[in-house]
Amino acid sequence: MTGDKKPVPEPTLRRLPTYVHYLRRTAQVETETISTSLMAKELKLDPTQVRKDLACTGVTGTPKVGYNIDRLIDAIENFLGWDNVEDAFLVGVGNLGKALLSYERLSGYGVNIVAAFDVNPALVGTSINGVKIIELKKMKNLIQRMNIHIGIITTPAGSAMDVAEKMIDGGIKAIWNFAPISIDSPDNVIVQNMDLYASLAVLSKKLKQQLKHSKRKNR
Amino acid sequence: MTGDKKPVPEPTLRRLPTYVHYLRRTAQVETETISTSLMAKELKLDPTQVRKDLACTGVTGTPKVGYNIDRLIDAIENFLGWDNVEDAFLVGVGNLGKALLSYERLSGYGVNIVAAFDVNPALVGTSINGVKIIELKKMKNLIQRMNIHIGIITTPAGSAMDVAEKMIDGGIKAIWNFAPISIDSPDNVIVQNMDLYASLAVLSKKLKQQLKHSKRKNR
Repeated sequence: MTGDKKPVPEPTLRRLPTYVHYLRRTAQVETETISTSLMAKELKLDPTQVRKDLACTGVTGTPKVGYNIDRLIDAIENFLGWDNVEDAFLVGVGNLGKALLSYERLSGYGVNIVAAFDVNPALVGTSINGVKIIELKKMKNLIQRMNIHIGIITTPAGSAMDVAEKMIDGGIKAIWNFAPISIDSPDNVIVQNMDLYASLAVLSKKLKQQLKHSKRKNR
Repeated sequence: MTGDKKPVPEPTLRRLPTYVHYLRRTAQVETETISTSLMAKELKLDPTQVRKDLACTGVTGTPKVGYNIDRLIDAIENFLGWDNVEDAFLVGVGNLGKALLSYERLSGYGVNIVAAFDVNPALVGTSINGVKIIELKKMKNLIQRMNIHIGIITTPAGSAMDVAEKMIDGGIKAIWNFAPISIDSPDNVIVQNMDLYASLAVLSKKLKQQLKHSKRKNR
């Protein structure tokens, strides 16, 4: 234990899963070690950035050789807490909710959905991928009884704030929000927006810049 | 036209849709104008950052009064190109693909899915929300004929790279990737990863830090 550390910057946290995906893919076909410059090149990132990101996890490489791929994967997974799964509740069993419930692999990323909630009586009592769908009004009580910390919101925008309030009342500490609405929360509750529209905004803006640029070149 | 401008930083692009969501919500209940300091406070952002972000769109506020909300919404939407919709193809009509096809509002964010593709014969020929599902092998040809620039990948990780190659061969210029895998692409093709796992990594890491912190306080 090295005592209190500075919190890791969010862009670093966002890049770490990309490294794991890349490393897992590379581990299947290539050698046992990898250099940060190769990783940076293939992932189109700055090598210094990659080196800094990996340093956050505490792993060390060998000069001129690089990192042992398996050890690097373990270090990042351990750092991200993927070896220490948290239980979560999901609210809103539409297509997006179903998609998340069907991701077998979510628990490999540190989160295990243990129950889902909806207001639709046709869904209540059924299961998806082994996860039971329960009446929404029972959620608050169950959060307390099961000591759940993570709530996932996949409802339409109109119901998201109401669901978030119920979650926070019950004792949820972190909300993963897929509804296209910003959620007010007290300071001790983390809200992570899935930001479908933020991602789309980056994509379409970049595309427009590029199309404009290539049009200009072709004149 | 102010000539060539510096490209807008990605974090700014990611925050702009949040401002629009917040402003639309505020426009319904409050006054006609808004200050950046109030926006920053309610969205838990730094006021200087908010001011810089808004400046990118070219909109100007009135000192001590702030911005006219409607004009601010228009300026951001215009800047993001949401008033100028691009056609897109989607591949992979599982739960996630269905969720995206069901988002009526996607076209309000600059992207209009005009056709979906899958390899499952049970799906081919059906429609979701008015969008026809077509055999995947017909995609490449249709990209060329319809001059489509945006491809959305909602397949499992295993098929994503193959689909991306077909898209790029056909002439796709921007890929919105929801599969948990990094996609290799030539420099002139934009890949925007939806980063489900990146978002989850940020959430669970923050939660772990917070739980550790509150445990320490309670000792």
